[in-house]
Amino acid sequence: MLSKKQLKSFSLICSFFLLFQGVLVAQNASVAEQKRNDYKGKEPKYVFLFIGDGFGLSQANAAEAFLSSEDKNVGIKKLNLSKFPAQGFYTTHAHNRYITGSAAAGTALATGHKTSISTISMCPSKQKPLKTVAELAKEKGMKVGVISSVSIDHATPAVFYAHQPERSNYYEIDVQLSESNFDFFGGGGLKCPEGNSDDLAALKAGSTGIDNGDNSVSNKKKNAIELAKERAYKYINTKADFEKLSPKDGKVIAVSPVLCGGSALRYSIDQTDEDITLAQFTAKGIEMLDNKNGFFMMVEGGKIDWTCHRNDAATAIHEVIDFDNAIAEAIDFYNNHPKETLIVVVGDHETGGLTMGFAGSHYESAFKKLKHQKVSGDAFDVKVKNYIKSCQGKTPEFSVVLDMIKKDYGLGDESKGLELKDFELDQLRNAFVRYMEKGNETDEQSYLLYGGYNPLTVKITHLLAHKAGISWTTFSHTGTPIPARAMGPGQDLFSGYFDNTDIPKNIMKLIGVEFPVVN
Amino acid sequence: MLSKKQLKSFSLICSFFLLFQGVLVAQNASVAEQKRNDYKGKEPKYVFLFIGDGFGLSQANAAEAFLSSEDKNVGIKKLNLSKFPAQGFYTTHAHNRYITGSAAAGTALATGHKTSISTISMCPSKQKPLKTVAELAKEKGMKVGVISSVSIDHATPAVFYAHQPERSNYYEIDVQLSESNFDFFGGGGLKCPEGNSDDLAALKAGSTGIDNGDNSVSNKKKNAIELAKERAYKYINTKADFEKLSPKDGKVIAVSPVLCGGSALRYSIDQTDEDITLAQFTAKGIEMLDNKNGFFMMVEGGKIDWTCHRNDAATAIHEVIDFDNAIAEAIDFYNNHPKETLIVVVGDHETGGLTMGFAGSHYESAFKKLKHQKVSGDAFDVKVKNYIKSCQGKTPEFSVVLDMIKKDYGLGDESKGLELKDFELDQLRNAFVRYMEKGNETDEQSYLLYGGYNPLTVKITHLLAHKAGISWTTFSHTGTPIPARAMGPGQDLFSGYFDNTDIPKNIMKLIGVEFPVVN
Repeated sequence: MLSKKQLKSFSLICSFFLLFQGVLVAQNASVAEQKRNDYKGKEPKYVFLFIGDGFGLSQANAAEAFLSSEDKNVGIKKLNLSKFPAQGFYTTHAHNRYITGSAAAGTALATGHKTSISTISMCPSKQKPLKTVAELAKEKGMKVGVISSVSIDHATPAVFYAHQPERSNYYEIDVQLSESNFDFFGGGGLKCPEGNSDDLAALKAGSTGIDNGDNSVSNKKKNAIELAKERAYKYINTKADFEKLSPKDGKVIAVSPVLCGGSALRYSIDQTDEDITLAQFTAKGIEMLDNKNGFFMMVEGGKIDWTCHRNDAATAIHEVIDFDNAIAEAIDFYNNHPKETLIVVVGDHETGGLTMGFAGSHYESAFKKLKHQKVSGDAFDVKVKNYIKSCQGKTPEFSVVLDMIKKDYGLGDESKGLELKDFELDQLRNAFVRYMEKGNETDEQSYLLYGGYNPLTVKITHLLAHKAGISWTTFSHTGTPIPARAMGPGQDLFSGYFDNTDIPKNIMKLIGVEFPVVN
Repeated sequence: MLSKKQLKSFSLICSFFLLFQGVLVAQNASVAEQKRNDYKGKEPKYVFLFIGDGFGLSQANAAEAFLSSEDKNVGIKKLNLSKFPAQGFYTTHAHNRYITGSAAAGTALATGHKTSISTISMCPSKQKPLKTVAELAKEKGMKVGVISSVSIDHATPAVFYAHQPERSNYYEIDVQLSESNFDFFGGGGLKCPEGNSDDLAALKAGSTGIDNGDNSVSNKKKNAIELAKERAYKYINTKADFEKLSPKDGKVIAVSPVLCGGSALRYSIDQTDEDITLAQFTAKGIEMLDNKNGFFMMVEGGKIDWTCHRNDAATAIHEVIDFDNAIAEAIDFYNNHPKETLIVVVGDHETGGLTMGFAGSHYESAFKKLKHQKVSGDAFDVKVKNYIKSCQGKTPEFSVVLDMIKKDYGLGDESKGLELKDFELDQLRNAFVRYMEKGNETDEQSYLLYGGYNPLTVKITHLLAHKAGISWTTFSHTGTPIPARAMGPGQDLFSGYFDNTDIPKNIMKLIGVEFPVVN
């Protein structure tokens, strides 16, 4: 037995030890973690997380420079997201690669954990699922919505409800979509609702590719949309049905009536009244989710990334503005519930190495030249294909192609300040010849020029960007840190310089749920 | 006469009007202005403003990725400046150009006013001088120091003490340097202390090019260093004298004993024990300025810009680390006076369109490959010149040049993972042939490749950067927003998204001086 004195000494030593440990923890904690731990403010009831895919500092800045390009004074016209009071930036690297991908970056944004490339909310070794902030919000009793301008089973939306070792397990993701029991899915369609033999072979265990003990073999071949209906989801894909949706409809999967490649919404620059915009999906999502227990809504501007991959600056700027219009819907809601609403706007990574500066234009910029572009690169690709098809085997004429370029991009039109120099015409001709001979086929050197896309269209958008004073370094993602913007209770946690994993950790702290420890 | 009742109504109307006006002002004020107006905290006694010239988000990130490139885990090793608790970013456009220059950007950072390109702290029409935060600090009784790794009459340091219609008025700037009565100047030398006939012709009125009524003709031809001595400055330019400097020496101009092109310090990567580093100048500046009335010190890392202009990634990274080492000196001071010290770290603009991503390396990075570079591009240029000279008219051998490249950059050394492919060898050979035939002469198309620098050296640094997974878009500045970092009283004013003019306005507010209105 210890004497009273001995016990006292022991207790004192223990106290010192604990105190010392506390100091150590505080010293090791990042600034972001300390701020999070110190937060004592209000809990937001409504949380919006907007994710721009491929949306870095330059993408926002390009849009702001474009929007002010006809103003008398030099400067920018701020996007809605740039007016947010708290702004910071963060690193994005994946567990196993400095330049991240949408699955690993999305997992970090959804779960607060780094993971390996192409993994959907599972640990780096792809063995264990990682709980997401959306799932925790749902468990807490909030309604949950997931919206994207690309397919709703694409990596960024998927990381919020699915757990898969590979982002390409689309069928399994489609099945997990309705397993989530989330309240609203909106935007693009499902990429692989019917599954195929490869998908099924990949299903090693359980209904979803994860050994969770639920070996519901009967689900394996079931169309994921039919399965969703069985699970009480209403599935709609017409504009009339979309407009009629109301909270009375319960759980909903709402898909755009107009889908293009990859089951995504059309690019904003190509949309007509037939389309449902990202902003319209967001407004509908708010209407569907608004309830006394609050909601968590993730909205992805997914095609900023796609168009930056192909270095199409004007289309990217229109996508950013489209994304910002969706954010405006959340701001409207915020204005009615300012003390209860938190809006966080982030990106998963930058795409393309976009910069407002090109060697050939030196210190000059002419962003308004981008206004002459009328179609996305994807849509122009189709026009070129159709023209070649219309030649019925005869050699297509480059002069006709040049007319098409002038019409859709203004390039070659002196009145628009877009005259083409001889060497630029040669570059266009070479690109067209290459396309005629080899299509999008690429080798190491031609990849540097065209990135595996239609050489003609890439050359057009490069020339137009260069004339505007904009350039790119890559057709892939980059490792540049990304800005965060926040408005509402807890906004200051998103100021400073932190890591992408801090973002869901902040949201979890703010909505009062525990960050799940992974064993 | 008005009745009492009428007076009461009138007074009520006035009150409403004033209230309404107040609301209007609040609505028009930027978030940054509102935060500034609302600030009620402590006044810092010691203020450091660190300016990285050409220092954007990517420059910091490249250094952080480089520093961690041999670590087991993928990620970054944070610079000292990245650990600051408050971080935000800001726009940089000049009055008359979207992509700014160091003079206009510096003027914004020193005075809180936008001005036209190449103007040194004067209004956009170059008619009226603009008071600087350094001058206001001096008037308030604080000591003032200006330190730079380039010449201390270069645009960025000059904007704090000089007022000139053109940044190239070096003699006039040199004269105004000692007119400022600031306490400590340190770093590079003066570019034109003796003046020349062109400079004198440019002196249209007064001793300094501005019609301020002080037509002190006798000063016009006086060596600016001699003039400084007459004005009680101690001028030193040896390391021994530098080390002996103490506050007893009064006002000091301390110039590095080793200067290279443009009277600047050597690049950090080329420095030896003979040099005085930017950190040593900063430490000495602190020693010289520390006094009971406090101080304002501007420290410029000026050669980040120079090396980014020539797209030399490794040299740029070493310059960033050198700049960060200078910041470490301020942090040491901060740690002794945490409640009284404000450190602000900014950049004037980004240079080069640097990005952690290159088309040819796709998603891969190998930052440690940059460790094999042992010299700056400038120093290698000299080596190549010397080799050619040593050939005494005989044709220089490309194989010898390749050996030089292997020794100083590791390029061509398979054991370092830097083997050269045939097309890369061809590119190096073409660049060398071009240099032999045309030197640095350039035309529109060759400019895109070499930017008017030695083609061989640019090609070497491009190849090395590409192998590391890094690329550039321009040899000029870019329009990308720039990060701000702050630590100390008032730090939160530097969070968010604002404009470069907000930075000195914040500092003026914090040190309790009025932002001067320009009529």
